[in-house]
Amino acid sequence: MELLLQVLLTMTVIFVMARIGSMVFGKLGLPGLIGEILIGVLIANIAGGDFMHDFLGIAFDGEYKSDTYIVIYTLAELGVIFLLFSVGLETKVKDLIGSGKAAFLCALLGVILPFIAGLAVVLAIGGYDLNAAMFMGAAMVATSVGITARIIKDMRLMDVKESRIIIAAAVIDDVLGMIVLAIVKGMALNEGGLDIIDLVIVIVKSVAFVLIAIAIAKYAVPRIYDYMDKRKRATIAAGKVPYTYNKLIFAIIVCLAMACLAEFIGLAAIIGAFLAGMMFADYAWEWELESRVEAITSFMISFFFVNVGLMVDISSLSDIGVIGIIVVVILLAMLTKYIGCGLGAKLGDRSIDKSSFSIIGVGMMPRGEVGIIIASIGLGAGVMSGDLYTIVVMMSVMTTIIAPPILSALFKKKYKVEYMIVPEDSL
Amino acid sequence: MELLLQVLLTMTVIFVMARIGSMVFGKLGLPGLIGEILIGVLIANIAGGDFMHDFLGIAFDGEYKSDTYIVIYTLAELGVIFLLFSVGLETKVKDLIGSGKAAFLCALLGVILPFIAGLAVVLAIGGYDLNAAMFMGAAMVATSVGITARIIKDMRLMDVKESRIIIAAAVIDDVLGMIVLAIVKGMALNEGGLDIIDLVIVIVKSVAFVLIAIAIAKYAVPRIYDYMDKRKRATIAAGKVPYTYNKLIFAIIVCLAMACLAEFIGLAAIIGAFLAGMMFADYAWEWELESRVEAITSFMISFFFVNVGLMVDISSLSDIGVIGIIVVVILLAMLTKYIGCGLGAKLGDRSIDKSSFSIIGVGMMPRGEVGIIIASIGLGAGVMSGDLYTIVVMMSVMTTIIAPPILSALFKKKYKVEYMIVPEDSL
Repeated sequence: MELLLQVLLTMTVIFVMARIGSMVFGKLGLPGLIGEILIGVLIANIAGGDFMHDFLGIAFDGEYKSDTYIVIYTLAELGVIFLLFSVGLETKVKDLIGSGKAAFLCALLGVILPFIAGLAVVLAIGGYDLNAAMFMGAAMVATSVGITARIIKDMRLMDVKESRIIIAAAVIDDVLGMIVLAIVKGMALNEGGLDIIDLVIVIVKSVAFVLIAIAIAKYAVPRIYDYMDKRKRATIAAGKVPYTYNKLIFAIIVCLAMACLAEFIGLAAIIGAFLAGMMFADYAWEWELESRVEAITSFMISFFFVNVGLMVDISSLSDIGVIGIIVVVILLAMLTKYIGCGLGAKLGDRSIDKSSFSIIGVGMMPRGEVGIIIASIGLGAGVMSGDLYTIVVMMSVMTTIIAPPILSALFKKKYKVEYMIVPEDSL
Repeated sequence: MELLLQVLLTMTVIFVMARIGSMVFGKLGLPGLIGEILIGVLIANIAGGDFMHDFLGIAFDGEYKSDTYIVIYTLAELGVIFLLFSVGLETKVKDLIGSGKAAFLCALLGVILPFIAGLAVVLAIGGYDLNAAMFMGAAMVATSVGITARIIKDMRLMDVKESRIIIAAAVIDDVLGMIVLAIVKGMALNEGGLDIIDLVIVIVKSVAFVLIAIAIAKYAVPRIYDYMDKRKRATIAAGKVPYTYNKLIFAIIVCLAMACLAEFIGLAAIIGAFLAGMMFADYAWEWELESRVEAITSFMISFFFVNVGLMVDISSLSDIGVIGIIVVVILLAMLTKYIGCGLGAKLGDRSIDKSSFSIIGVGMMPRGEVGIIIASIGLGAGVMSGDLYTIVVMMSVMTTIIAPPILSALFKKKYKVEYMIVPEDSL
C-alpha cells in the first residue's frame, strides 16, 4: 500500500479506537488516557500480529520498524513534546523557583531510593554482575512526567502546590537521572573505569542547560519583549504599518529547538520543551498560545498513549518465575518513588500534609519510556540481558498505567474536582 | 544519530530556514510560500548533498528514502491535508453548488486542453509511442489546489466569486483527472486494451464519493447536529450534566477518515479533507474549529512548501535540448490551464470579466505533486521514460512556483488587498 494511504488509515483507526477507549474510561470517571493505553495493549496483544502487520502496517520488532510505525512513533513523541510545552506555558519562573527546595529534595530522594532498589533486586536474584545491577538501578530512576502532566492539565490543577512541586521535581529528576546514567555508563563501558572528566562534563552540561533556560525566561525574555514592543510603537508613531510576526510559529520553533538541544545534551526532549514553554509563560495568554498549542497537542497525543500500550507484550508473562520478579520490581518501583518523593517534598516544605505527600509520591511514579531507553542502552552494550530488559519495559509500562487512576482519585478527593464532567473537552 | 534527535534537528533547521524565506518574500510584498519553496530548492541544490545527507538526514533518491525524510514527507502531506480541511471549513455547500456550472466547465476545459497539449508535445518530439504520450497528457491535467488555497486564505478572499469557482473547479478537476488516468492506464497497461467495466467503476466511485460527501454536508449534518443538541437539552432538563465531546478531535477524525477514503478511491487525499471541512462549515465558528485547525496547519505546512522545492534538481538542466523541451512544456502547461479554465468559467458564468478570467486561469495553473504521481505510475509501468519523468517533475514544480506571485498580484489589483501587512499572521 502506498505510504500516505497506509499512514492515513493507521492514524484514523488508532485515533478512533483511542477515542472509544478514552470515552469509556471518561464515562466511568477515570482518566481517559488509561483507556487509550489499554487500546494500545489490545491492538498489540489481543488483536494480534496480523492486524498490526497487515492492516495497521505498524510492524516493529527490535531492530526493524516499518515506515508507518516510524511516522506514528514520531507523532507520538511530538505529541508529548507539545504537551510538556503547554505545561511550560502555564508555569511561571517564580512558581518553579518558589517550590525549589521541596522539589529538589523530592527529586533527590526519588532518585536515590529507586536506584538502590534496582541495584539490590538484581544482586538478590543472583547470576548478574554489578554492572547489570547498576544499569537496572539507573533504569528505575527516571520519572516521565508526560502522563502526570496530562492529568494535572485535565483536572485544571496547574496552580496547586503539589502540581508545582511535581513539575519542578520532574525537571530536576531528569538532570539527576542523566548524571546517574553517565556514572553507570562510565563505570560499565569504560575499560579503565569511570572517567571523572567525562562525568563532570555531563553534570555541567545538563545543569547549565536548565539554569540558562530558566535565566533566559526570567531575565532575557521580558527585555526582548519590551524592545519589540517599543520598536512596534515607534513604527506606528512614524506612520508606518508594523510587520506582524506569527507568534505561534515563533514559539513552536523555540520549542523544537529546545527539545532538540535537550536531546542533544542527553536530557529528555520533553524537558527542553517544558523549559521553552516557560519562556513564553508571561505572554501565552496575550499571544493566544495556549489554545493553539493545545490544538496541536490534541492531534498527536493519543498516539503517545496508544504507543505506551503497544509496548506491552503479554506473552512474556508466561513464566511464573519471571512474573514474580516483575511484580516485585513494579512494587519496589512504585514504593521507592512514593516514599522518596513524598518524604523529600516534606523535608523541603513542612506544610506538606499526608494527602500532599501521597499526591506527590504517586505523581512521580510513572517511568514512561525513559527507563526503557536506558535499559536499551544497557542491552545494546551487552551489559544487560534480554530478560532484565523485559522486566524494565514491564516496570515502565505498569507504573505508567497504575499511577494515573490513583493520582486522579487523590486529586479528586483533595480538591473536589469533578474529573468526569468534561473529560473530552479538557484538552 | 538517534531518530528523534535527527527529526527534531531537521524540523528545527527546515522550519527556521522556511521562516526566513517566508519573511524575506513577505517584506517584498510577495507570497511567503514562494520563499519557503525556494529554501527547499536551495537546500537540495546549493547547500548540496552532504548537507542533506549528513546534517538534515533527509536523503532520498528514487527508491531509497531515509527515516527522517519519511517523517518530514508525512508531516508535509498532513499539513496540506489540514490546509484544505480549513478551506473546507470556510466553504458552505450552497456556495459550492452556486458556482457549479462555471466550475464544471472551468474544470472540463482545463482538463481537455492540457491533455491534448501533453499528448501533442510528446508526439511532436518523436521517438515515443502513443502510450507514453497519453501518460504525458494525463500528467498535465491535474491541478493541485493547495498553493492557490493558501494564497486565497492569506489574502482573506475566500468569499469572492473567483475563489469559489477555483475551489469548486479543483474538486471537479480531480475527479476528471482520475477518470483520465483510469482511461490512460487501461489503454496502456491492459493487454486487451481499455476495460470499459473498470472505467465505469472508477467514474462511479469518484463521482459518488464527491456527491455523497456533499449530500451528507447538506442534509445529514444539520440533522445530526439538531439531534445532538436536543439530547443535550434533555439531559440538562433532567438535571444531569451532559457529557461534552471534544469537537476538534471529532472533526480531525472525520478529516483523516475522508482523506483516507479519497486516497483509497484514487482521488487526492486533500479532496477528501476539503469535503470533510465542508461538512463542518456551518459549525466551524461555533465550535472554534477554524483557529485550532489553522494552528495545526501552521505547524506542518512549511514542510509541504519546502518539500516542493526539494524536488527541483537543477543539475538536470544541463542539456540545452532538454531545457528547450522543458520550457515549451511549462509554457503549454500554463497556457492551456489559463485559456481552458478561464474560458470554461466564462462560458458557465457570463458575468466573468477579463480580470476574473485571469485570476481563475492563473489560480488553476499549479500542478503540485499530482502530476508527478501520475508520471511515476507511468515510469513504474515502463510506459514513460526517465527524461519524460524529469520533464513532468520540472513542469509540476515550475507551474507551482510561477503561478503564486502572478495570482497574488492579480488579486491585489482587483480587490485592493494589502497582502504585505500581515503575511506572517495570516495563517
